[in-house]
Amino acid sequence: MKWETLARELVQPTDSKIILLVMDGLGGLPVNGRTELEAAHKPNLDETARRGVCGLTDPVFMGITPGSGPAHLSLFGYDPLRYQLGRGILESLGTGVEVGREDVVARGNFATLRDGLVVDRRAGRISTEENGRLCQDINRQLPELNGIKVSLYPGKEHRFVLKLSGPGLSDALSDADPQKEGKPAIPARALAPEAEFTAGLVNLFLEQLKTVLAGEPKANYALLRGFSKFPSHLPSMPELYQIKPAAIASYPMYRGLTRLLGMEVLEVGPDTGDIFSVLERNYDRYNFFYLHYKKTDSAGEDGRYEDKVKAIEEIDAYLPRLWQLRPEVLVVTSDHSTPSVLKSHSWHPNPFVLVSDRAPADEVNRFTEKDCARGSLGRFPALQAMPLMLACALKLKKFGA
Amino acid sequence: MKWETLARELVQPTDSKIILLVMDGLGGLPVNGRTELEAAHKPNLDETARRGVCGLTDPVFMGITPGSGPAHLSLFGYDPLRYQLGRGILESLGTGVEVGREDVVARGNFATLRDGLVVDRRAGRISTEENGRLCQDINRQLPELNGIKVSLYPGKEHRFVLKLSGPGLSDALSDADPQKEGKPAIPARALAPEAEFTAGLVNLFLEQLKTVLAGEPKANYALLRGFSKFPSHLPSMPELYQIKPAAIASYPMYRGLTRLLGMEVLEVGPDTGDIFSVLERNYDRYNFFYLHYKKTDSAGEDGRYEDKVKAIEEIDAYLPRLWQLRPEVLVVTSDHSTPSVLKSHSWHPNPFVLVSDRAPADEVNRFTEKDCARGSLGRFPALQAMPLMLACALKLKKFGA
Repeated sequence: MKWETLARELVQPTDSKIILLVMDGLGGLPVNGRTELEAAHKPNLDETARRGVCGLTDPVFMGITPGSGPAHLSLFGYDPLRYQLGRGILESLGTGVEVGREDVVARGNFATLRDGLVVDRRAGRISTEENGRLCQDINRQLPELNGIKVSLYPGKEHRFVLKLSGPGLSDALSDADPQKEGKPAIPARALAPEAEFTAGLVNLFLEQLKTVLAGEPKANYALLRGFSKFPSHLPSMPELYQIKPAAIASYPMYRGLTRLLGMEVLEVGPDTGDIFSVLERNYDRYNFFYLHYKKTDSAGEDGRYEDKVKAIEEIDAYLPRLWQLRPEVLVVTSDHSTPSVLKSHSWHPNPFVLVSDRAPADEVNRFTEKDCARGSLGRFPALQAMPLMLACALKLKKFGA
Repeated sequence: MKWETLARELVQPTDSKIILLVMDGLGGLPVNGRTELEAAHKPNLDETARRGVCGLTDPVFMGITPGSGPAHLSLFGYDPLRYQLGRGILESLGTGVEVGREDVVARGNFATLRDGLVVDRRAGRISTEENGRLCQDINRQLPELNGIKVSLYPGKEHRFVLKLSGPGLSDALSDADPQKEGKPAIPARALAPEAEFTAGLVNLFLEQLKTVLAGEPKANYALLRGFSKFPSHLPSMPELYQIKPAAIASYPMYRGLTRLLGMEVLEVGPDTGDIFSVLERNYDRYNFFYLHYKKTDSAGEDGRYEDKVKAIEEIDAYLPRLWQLRPEVLVVTSDHSTPSVLKSHSWHPNPFVLVSDRAPADEVNRFTEKDCARGSLGRFPALQAMPLMLACALKLKKFGA
């Protein structure tokens, strides 16, 4: 029996509040002997570790480096190996594109094609305004193909979402993207027999796009990746856990994912303090809060070790505002690690601390990778974080007699 | 591959002896800074921790609070998510009711019905003698319904077991119990089409019961819960592990469960010392001994912190008698936690210590929740306790070439 089946049987609604602060890409590797967490001056995160029970989580299992989607799913109690979300779906929901159950969506890049070769995968990062104009043009000139409605939604700079709406579509398609510059454009391929129709449609669209964009100096072609449909049978968090969840996140990806999971996605500005202000203003209206902090991951991805240290120190100052709310359960952790030295996500486990009256503090008093390894939660699958949070908020009944 | 499949392949009979002492509901939460285990003076349990290898077990997984049934199954190496035992089955076996493969059993309460409302779910806790008389009456007046044999077996006070025997019965029934007093009596509902016949039968029985009990001042009705059949495909411990197991437990629930698993259930009195005396008297006749100690759980359930501390201190005095037997494997642990402050089972992990010549002691020298968290077994699923015990008793062969 899966956790979800068990959840449906055991959850009970209570007023208890849960705050889950995700410091994206938090875990790191040492530079001059110290990880970013070890180097940062962060008295409040350390105090949180002192008050709580600590451990390390594996988002999927040891050795697996997750994308943001799977890593977050796991934290929210959804098996990431069971629910695989297409990047197109996440991007669509993040940019506010409504996706119907039959639709197929993909991430698009405007690109520059010369002599059949993709010479710039981002079309010189054209302006967002130019992008808007191009999408409008294309939507007017190619509103429909083979009875399927075709819609482009502009994103930032060269990015857009392609949505195909109509019956008989499949998302079992390979990317129409050579991934590297200087290589020939490639068509989408059907990965299953039922996707032949959609593959043909996508490739016809790409051919016609060349004509529409023939006069453009830079954006004369497009690359399509992450064809995907809305996952069927994905239960929402309110349904599964009988909670009223709010997401406080500014990046499209996380907003899209949480909307998909049935959270209410609150408006938030780009400042770190904003996520805390939005939390405080809405604290009475929900009983589960997901706060997303991106700077740790961005700095890690760019290899900016010092900036990642600063990003940790910056958020540290806000922690007392979380304590003051006195939630029944406060968790500070990460979705995955992003060591600056690797400049990418990694498979290293996430520091995890849970503070609750029903979780007696262990002997950990610093919030670092090494200290959390000695916590009494031990090393555990991130998928067990949600049951643990619900339990400490008394939202789970006894299993069996 | 499941552990059970592996067990069948790897087990080998040896003379080595295993003693598993379960201190029910042992783990707790701090009161004035100390859990019950931390407050207790228990030199022998601490010495056991010093001699052994320690850890913390999760009966199901993090956050899940198990009932006694699932928690024990896990300790005995049976996946509690796979084998879900109905409360009726456990109660039946515990009270010595033989359950055939086709039978359906349920827990019954005599209750008081007034104007269609259940005004007392325990019929004023009628005496055990009165209960016996009522069951005899009912068995005489309602021996059979629609070709199905109906039998009541009296338990303590207001409790009884209902057994239905005959072909075509199903246990997919909801409880015929409003759960709260002041609510109307409710019928059993079929939860699957094949249970319609049984639901009709149960509800007919309840109707006729009103007539039989019409003259009773208090026990004029009954509530039925936990309809269940013998779980099919549940292998016995002797079959699965090639051991000769004995259960030394005085409470019906644990006697029932272990009988179901093929253990021999030995007679034991209510004194703590009795379980040790029975063990010593029967030590040559079996090679796996399960000892159940209930007082820690009972005190926890009632919120009697000091009594739980005393219960720990009481059993501590007997530990040297276990050492003197020099079993190849001695394990002291619990099935689940029952913190006095919660007055109920909880999801917190169980302290676990295993003493064996083949398990080199770690650095833990106190038997508490926090100390066990630092043990070299770490935090692990209780389902792995049985393989570990069998291995240390050299009862498991190598897996693969």
